[in-house]
Amino acid sequence: MSVARVLGLDVGGSSVKCLLVEADADARPDAVPRVVRQERRPTPKHDPLSGLQELIAEFAAGEELSAVTVSVPGIVDEDGVVIRSSNVPALDGHPLAAVLSDGSGLPVRVVNDGHAAALAEASWGAGSGRDDVFVLALGTGIAGAHIVGGRLSGGAHGSAGELGHISVDNPGAPCSCGRNGCLETVVGAPALAAAWHRVGGTGGVEDLLHAYEEGVETARHVVRNAVAALSEAVLTLSALVDPGCIVIGGGLASAPHRLVTLTAERVAAEATFHRVPPIRPATLGGWAGAHGAVRIALDAVRQSRSGDSAASMSPSNR
Amino acid sequence: MSVARVLGLDVGGSSVKCLLVEADADARPDAVPRVVRQERRPTPKHDPLSGLQELIAEFAAGEELSAVTVSVPGIVDEDGVVIRSSNVPALDGHPLAAVLSDGSGLPVRVVNDGHAAALAEASWGAGSGRDDVFVLALGTGIAGAHIVGGRLSGGAHGSAGELGHISVDNPGAPCSCGRNGCLETVVGAPALAAAWHRVGGTGGVEDLLHAYEEGVETARHVVRNAVAALSEAVLTLSALVDPGCIVIGGGLASAPHRLVTLTAERVAAEATFHRVPPIRPATLGGWAGAHGAVRIALDAVRQSRSGDSAASMSPSNR
Repeated sequence: MSVARVLGLDVGGSSVKCLLVEADADARPDAVPRVVRQERRPTPKHDPLSGLQELIAEFAAGEELSAVTVSVPGIVDEDGVVIRSSNVPALDGHPLAAVLSDGSGLPVRVVNDGHAAALAEASWGAGSGRDDVFVLALGTGIAGAHIVGGRLSGGAHGSAGELGHISVDNPGAPCSCGRNGCLETVVGAPALAAAWHRVGGTGGVEDLLHAYEEGVETARHVVRNAVAALSEAVLTLSALVDPGCIVIGGGLASAPHRLVTLTAERVAAEATFHRVPPIRPATLGGWAGAHGAVRIALDAVRQSRSGDSAASMSPSNR
Repeated sequence: MSVARVLGLDVGGSSVKCLLVEADADARPDAVPRVVRQERRPTPKHDPLSGLQELIAEFAAGEELSAVTVSVPGIVDEDGVVIRSSNVPALDGHPLAAVLSDGSGLPVRVVNDGHAAALAEASWGAGSGRDDVFVLALGTGIAGAHIVGGRLSGGAHGSAGELGHISVDNPGAPCSCGRNGCLETVVGAPALAAAWHRVGGTGGVEDLLHAYEEGVETARHVVRNAVAALSEAVLTLSALVDPGCIVIGGGLASAPHRLVTLTAERVAAEATFHRVPPIRPATLGGWAGAHGAVRIALDAVRQSRSGDSAASMSPSNR
C-alpha cells in the first residue's frame, strides 16, 4: 500500500487556503484523505505567480509531495492558463499550471474554484454517496456544476451548469451576462439586498433572513419571491438534467440554510412529473474549494500510477 | 468480417414501420447499414402482442436475424415492460420484450420511440458526426433527448430532456403535466393552432405557417411568439446542458423547416455568454424511430459479440 501526499491551494480574493493531505494511493477516490496541514495565508495579489511558487515551495519543503492543484476564481483553459479571473486580475492570461510546475518540479494542475468546490461537495460533502450530483453555489453570482461519477460533466464546450443565467423573470432586471431576468437578477446577493431595501429594509441578506424569521411581512414577501424563482430554476434543472441529488451552497446558503429548506419545500409542492431528487445544504463551507483541489490532485496521482492518463477535471492540464 | 441482419419495428398509432437491415458486425456504430427490406403495416391495435409476434415471424422467415428492437410510443422500463402507451393502450403493462423474445427465440429489446428516433437523428441524421447532440421533437407534445457518444444520456432517473415542460410563460396556460406555462402550452401543435384561431385564422399549423410566409400580420405575430418561447427554451438548454448540436424534428419542424431557421436566427441574436451550437432540422423524417430501432439492435449484436454486456439504451432489457 503506497501513500500519497498532495497539496491543494484555493486562491481567493483575500486569502489562499492551503490544504496538505495524505491518502492511500489505492483507496477509492471517494475515501476522505487525512489532513496533514491546513493553513490560510494572505493572497499575493501583486505578484501572485511568485507568491504561489513560494507557498508551494514552503509546503513542499521536507515532504514528498506527489502533486499540487491550485483552484482559482476564474476561467481556466485546458492547459492551465487563466483566461479571466475576477478577484485576482493579476493572474489573467498567465499559463499558471506551466509556471508553477516548472518552478516546483511537481505536477501542478490549475482549475476553476467553483468546479473544485462542487467536486468536493459531491464527493466528500452533502452529495457523498451519490453518483450524480448538481452543486449550486448561491452568492453574488450563481454558479452550478454537474458532477457525474466523480467527474465534472461540463457539456460540449465545458460551459454547462449555468443555472444562474436561465430566465425566471420577464422582462426582468438587466443581468451581468447581457440579458434580462436571469435567476441571478432575483436571487443573487446584491439583487436580494436591493429588493429588501426597496421595501424599506436595511442591511444585507443576513438581516433580510433574520427579519423573515421574525415574521416581518415585507421580508417574507422578498424571501417568497426569491424562493419562487429558485424553485422554478430547480424544476427546470430536474426536467432537463434530472440530477440524482442537488446540493446548495455558497455564501447565501450557509449560516441559516433557510433558503435551501424553503426551496426544497416549494419544489416538492410544485413538482408534477418531475423526479425531484434530495435537495441538501452544502456541508464543507469555505474550505470546499481546497478539498476539491486535493481531490483532483489525488485523482491525478492515482491515474498516473494506474497508467490512465485521463484526469478528472482537465485532461490536458498537467 | 461477419455480417449481421437485424429488424427494427417502430410501432405507431396507425402503422408499424418495419426495417430490416444488414451491417458489418465490426463496422463503427455510426456506419449507416444497408436496407434489405422496408415496409409499413397497419398497427395490430386489438391484439398487439400476437400481431407483433406474427410480424417478427414473417420478417425472420428465411433470414438469419441476429436481433430485433421494437420502438413503442410510450414509457418502457428497464426490463422492456410497457408502462404507459398513449397511442396503443393495449400494450400497457405487458412485458413486451419478454413475450416477443420468447415467441421468436430472438433477442428482442423494447424502447421508447422518441429515444429511438433521437438516437437515429444523432447517429445517421442531422447530428451525424457530432458526439453530443440534443434532439427535440416538436409535435402535439414536445420531447427531448440528449445523445452523448451514441448513447442516451437520461439523467439519474432516465427522465432528463423534458424541454417541453420548462416554464416559458408566467402564469401561462394549463399544461398536460399539471403545471402552467410550459413550452408545450405555447409551441405544441394544438397550442399553436389555438393561438392562430384566436386571431381569426383557420385550419392548422400548416395554414398558419403558410399565412406567415405570405406576410399576414396576425400569423407573423403568432409565429413570433412561438419562436420567442422556443428560443428562450433553447438558450436555457445551452446554459444548463451545453450540447454540441441541436436537432429539431417532429411534425411541426418537418415540411417547411421554417420554425427551425427562425429559432436559430433568434437564438443567435439573443445569446450572450452562451456557446450556441449549430441548430439543424432533422433529416430522417417519419422513419427515424425505425432507424433508431435497428441502431439499437446492431449495438446489441456488436456488444454481445465483443463480450460487452452494456447496451446503448436499456442495459437490462434483453
